[in-house]
Amino acid sequence: MIESEVDALVTLAHLGEPGDQVLGAYVRKLGPVAAVAAITARKSGLRDGAGLHARLGLADPQAAREKCQRIGAEIITRGTINWPTQLDDLGDGAPFALWVQGAAGLRLAALRSLAVVGARAASSYGESVGRDWCATFADAGWTVVSGGAYGIDAAAHRGALSAGGITVCVLASGVDVAYPRAHEALIARIADEGVVVSESPPGEGVRRHRFLSRNRIIAALTRATVVIEASVRSGTTSTANAAVQLNRHVLAVPGPVTSPMSAGCHNLIREQGAILASCPEDVLEVLGPLSVSIPRGGPDKRLWVIPQRPTDDLTPREARVLDAFPGRGEVSLNKLVCDAGMSPMDVTAALGILAIGGFVQPSGMSWARTGRA
Amino acid sequence: MIESEVDALVTLAHLGEPGDQVLGAYVRKLGPVAAVAAITARKSGLRDGAGLHARLGLADPQAAREKCQRIGAEIITRGTINWPTQLDDLGDGAPFALWVQGAAGLRLAALRSLAVVGARAASSYGESVGRDWCATFADAGWTVVSGGAYGIDAAAHRGALSAGGITVCVLASGVDVAYPRAHEALIARIADEGVVVSESPPGEGVRRHRFLSRNRIIAALTRATVVIEASVRSGTTSTANAAVQLNRHVLAVPGPVTSPMSAGCHNLIREQGAILASCPEDVLEVLGPLSVSIPRGGPDKRLWVIPQRPTDDLTPREARVLDAFPGRGEVSLNKLVCDAGMSPMDVTAALGILAIGGFVQPSGMSWARTGRA
Repeated sequence: MIESEVDALVTLAHLGEPGDQVLGAYVRKLGPVAAVAAITARKSGLRDGAGLHARLGLADPQAAREKCQRIGAEIITRGTINWPTQLDDLGDGAPFALWVQGAAGLRLAALRSLAVVGARAASSYGESVGRDWCATFADAGWTVVSGGAYGIDAAAHRGALSAGGITVCVLASGVDVAYPRAHEALIARIADEGVVVSESPPGEGVRRHRFLSRNRIIAALTRATVVIEASVRSGTTSTANAAVQLNRHVLAVPGPVTSPMSAGCHNLIREQGAILASCPEDVLEVLGPLSVSIPRGGPDKRLWVIPQRPTDDLTPREARVLDAFPGRGEVSLNKLVCDAGMSPMDVTAALGILAIGGFVQPSGMSWARTGRA
Repeated sequence: MIESEVDALVTLAHLGEPGDQVLGAYVRKLGPVAAVAAITARKSGLRDGAGLHARLGLADPQAAREKCQRIGAEIITRGTINWPTQLDDLGDGAPFALWVQGAAGLRLAALRSLAVVGARAASSYGESVGRDWCATFADAGWTVVSGGAYGIDAAAHRGALSAGGITVCVLASGVDVAYPRAHEALIARIADEGVVVSESPPGEGVRRHRFLSRNRIIAALTRATVVIEASVRSGTTSTANAAVQLNRHVLAVPGPVTSPMSAGCHNLIREQGAILASCPEDVLEVLGPLSVSIPRGGPDKRLWVIPQRPTDDLTPREARVLDAFPGRGEVSLNKLVCDAGMSPMDVTAALGILAIGGFVQPSGMSWARTGRA
């Protein structure tokens, strides 16, 4: 019997296929604990209920945590302080949990990130642009997110690493399953210097549809998606489409009209309204300032608001939590919950944003103002 | 004393600098004959009046016609049947007359034309795209208009010629002055198989500002301007800007982001709203159908209207002239003037459009319906 929300989310991450919106909506309505209980009791009423139930044997949260320890990974779940809240823009398709391996914190790294993706069968032109530009992005403090594949993905990761930057590799397999195998060393280096992340549990191999669901994570994690090269019908365009749906910027790099590997980019510019990027500075201009932007979801709002004063960009909820802080000294989570009158999860989420914005910082088991604002 | 409108326009073409809007407005108000008379009598009141007067000695219409005969050229003036009325979109900057050398009729050739322009210092990529695409355009029945310069211009002319198509070279010098000299043979071949045209009288050399005024003619003559390669600050962008102001389509061809010769094209796409063209078919799609489109000026209207029925696209004035035709048999210009109740110039202009549209055809000194519509 699973009683904690975190355990329920870890269980659900084992049960559902990535991006399963039906399961996502079900969990939204019942809450994770009740949803797992219903699936366990074969009373979910879900069409895939039997399939979900069948996977329960693989989904022991304690065993999952032990496995993580063995492979040097950690599990982060929705609503915790390390959760990249940008992923909530995926709605009912958002993952329940992520497996993360790496030195850099995913949430902070992803807050100042862009996706750089493209063809596996990239040309030397595309690989050179990917490598050079990503070195520039890393140099400017941006995290380069990509998929670890042959071609543009690998060039993007390598460019960021060459500049000593942080890069995030989102795998379609489990974090302990290097795919493609030839990139085992590259993926290991990314785990050492950046972050390797997956919504599939360790041990899981790749499946065709998981590449597509992985692409939506890349698009959702990042502020913009840059397509370096793509053929006309390619998986790369699925990342671009996901980015458009998520209200993220999409940029595409032109190339020779004689190169089939640039045809998809030209299509994105001409037909889909992608912004033409002719140099890294074009991309940086679209990304906006690095440090003071805080992500905001919702299709009607500007996705990334640049605040005029430090606190201008806080939501009422975040401002309420900040107001609950004493002028100086530390405060416990429990006291903040009490003083702000909000749920622990809401307070935790607000603390994450406030910490990223530099307003507060963790201090042991407590929190303190930084002096900003 | 000049009495005919044609002679007055030829005279004015000798007096003014190409694109002189002040002189253009003056001529619009007074009419060509009165304008020449006032300039001759030093009573124009124009700031440049003395300069214009000083050129009168070079501006003998009879001598101009004799010179044309010697060099195998002809002069066409505003309002005559051979006039490309698209040029009227230039307003007070429209030329008074054009010198034309060549086998093909300028007006008909220009009606189904596009401009292909670009850098003089083109790369082999740009030259190869220019040549290949223009062969395709010519093959599809389109006239390629360019400026006869090194680089893209020459590649465009040569591509059209290689496909047996018609190409128009608009010179900044007089039609008998090959510029650049190295293109003497190319320009001679264009005169043989296409059209060489200039608004400057024979014998005139190039001057810096005449390249800019020549570019507006290229933009105005054509349905769309395609920029193959351009550096960021280049004369090519003046053609593109003129095309935008004239409500013509502007397309630009992308290239490697590492090539400075593609930087101007990328700028046009990103900053100026030029359409990205990745293959000749992209251009043909924008150009629309070849035969049934009739040019319409004015910034508020769609410039090139594709009629649903043959006569749908006629203006009331043109429809009135068509209605004045007998059901069968020939009709003289004088009778049309009388029956339509319009001036000879208006009737002539309408006949030009009706002939291009395939509704009527000249028959000796008279006109007849073709049976269309």
